[in-house]
Amino acid sequence: MALKNTKITFFDLASVYPDRRSLSLWCWTTRLVLNFKGLGYTTQFVEFPDIEPTLKPLGIPPTATKADGSPLFTVPAIIDATDPTKPPVCVSDSQEILLYLEKMYPDPLRPLIPSTTQNTGTYVPAPALYMLVKQFVLSNFMPYILPLVIEDMVPIIPPRAFEFATKAIVAAKGEGHDFLTAHFVGKEGSPEKEAYWKKLEAGFGIMALILESGEKIRADSSVSGGAGEFFMGHQVTFADFSLLAPMIMIRFASERGWERVSKWHGGRWERYWKALEEYIVVA
Amino acid sequence: MALKNTKITFFDLASVYPDRRSLSLWCWTTRLVLNFKGLGYTTQFVEFPDIEPTLKPLGIPPTATKADGSPLFTVPAIIDATDPTKPPVCVSDSQEILLYLEKMYPDPLRPLIPSTTQNTGTYVPAPALYMLVKQFVLSNFMPYILPLVIEDMVPIIPPRAFEFATKAIVAAKGEGHDFLTAHFVGKEGSPEKEAYWKKLEAGFGIMALILESGEKIRADSSVSGGAGEFFMGHQVTFADFSLLAPMIMIRFASERGWERVSKWHGGRWERYWKALEEYIVVA
Repeated sequence: MALKNTKITFFDLASVYPDRRSLSLWCWTTRLVLNFKGLGYTTQFVEFPDIEPTLKPLGIPPTATKADGSPLFTVPAIIDATDPTKPPVCVSDSQEILLYLEKMYPDPLRPLIPSTTQNTGTYVPAPALYMLVKQFVLSNFMPYILPLVIEDMVPIIPPRAFEFATKAIVAAKGEGHDFLTAHFVGKEGSPEKEAYWKKLEAGFGIMALILESGEKIRADSSVSGGAGEFFMGHQVTFADFSLLAPMIMIRFASERGWERVSKWHGGRWERYWKALEEYIVVA
Repeated sequence: MALKNTKITFFDLASVYPDRRSLSLWCWTTRLVLNFKGLGYTTQFVEFPDIEPTLKPLGIPPTATKADGSPLFTVPAIIDATDPTKPPVCVSDSQEILLYLEKMYPDPLRPLIPSTTQNTGTYVPAPALYMLVKQFVLSNFMPYILPLVIEDMVPIIPPRAFEFATKAIVAAKGEGHDFLTAHFVGKEGSPEKEAYWKKLEAGFGIMALILESGEKIRADSSVSGGAGEFFMGHQVTFADFSLLAPMIMIRFASERGWERVSKWHGGRWERYWKALEEYIVVA
């Protein structure tokens, strides 16, 4: 898949799958960008307890501060050693990585951050669209996804990562809790869990409405080549990856969960997945 | 302000202000589009009880169905009688009006519905950005705005409209309620109302974050002429009107409410208002 001869190391969160494919929403947005741009990269999978010990000595910047005031290290992160005449560039935080890659390796015919200035010829990056999708995902998807897939997800989390997460939960909530119980809302089929499915379906419903309206408007205007199924018509942008990433999280954590989502809204999300599947690749 | 010789009648909701300026969010989005495009139009102000009796005989289509199954007529609505060789065109629903005006009176150098295809030369309307802003406004602004401005707003509502709204509230909630009490959460300065202000401020905070990120990203990329304060940089699009309309509603309903909002986020919203003020005109 790599078309460009770049030398990038991508730090991603490991699962127990044979290919170690990530369950991390944010790591997936970065991988989708790397794959979309056809950049050469190798993945270094790390488990949750190893993030700080791995990233800190490499000089990768922290992305936040912990409650105790010490720096917080997170994945995704990248080291770009493409230019042999310069020191490697370390970037963390999925948004910073997107901006770095878009600037260093632009693809003028298919920018991931849209611009409206098609008539002036100047490229003006406007991140509002993808930031709104990200905000929507944070508010209307994320509170429901983890509780919905947690039972199926636990066996896919490496045992050390599960224990590490549990330690933090015990510290916050007391003995008797673990990473499963902290997010558990009910067994599959229980009214509690069904209510969560309904909320998630409502969130996806709003996204379906927005995508469908775009298709209708484009079909009405005399655009050649059909309506286009992405936020910006036929053009894939980072807004699509922001919506696709939670779907990847659901599907890779819970195949039966994805079975349900994929049937919603006339099978729109199964089609959406297929249209973007070429980028959902673990290199 | 009118630059184009169009003959459009615009049906807007009347207040008791001398110029009858609307307190309706949706009507304002339409008026902003008419003003932005410099179209010639006259306003016909109607009070709430007169919407159906006015629109129905004119053949303006309803926009929804009432609980009893009968059609619901709403403002904004327009009648476009510009072309004397054709019957006048009647359009209702703010989104339908936007699409109609954008199609009939396009302004290729400043499309209100952005497109990303600047490199292919084909205009592909992509409404996702403004629909996401609209969705955000509906979820994160509207539940708080009416309760926050209701006390100041009531004297500006025409008495017949207040009585009409109260009738519906009495029918739903029983005697003793009116349009004020139905939305009242507390006196100015009460803890209940302060909590609502905090929620509205948080919503505006997310919009500030999105606009500010865009400015930073554009300032970093070597775009000539500065960063631009709108969702799409220097280019005003309908996404901006979708965010401006609730600010207009706040300001015209409650000057002291606007005093508060205008100071949030470093005075961003006062600047945003000023940058778009030329379109906030009652013609």
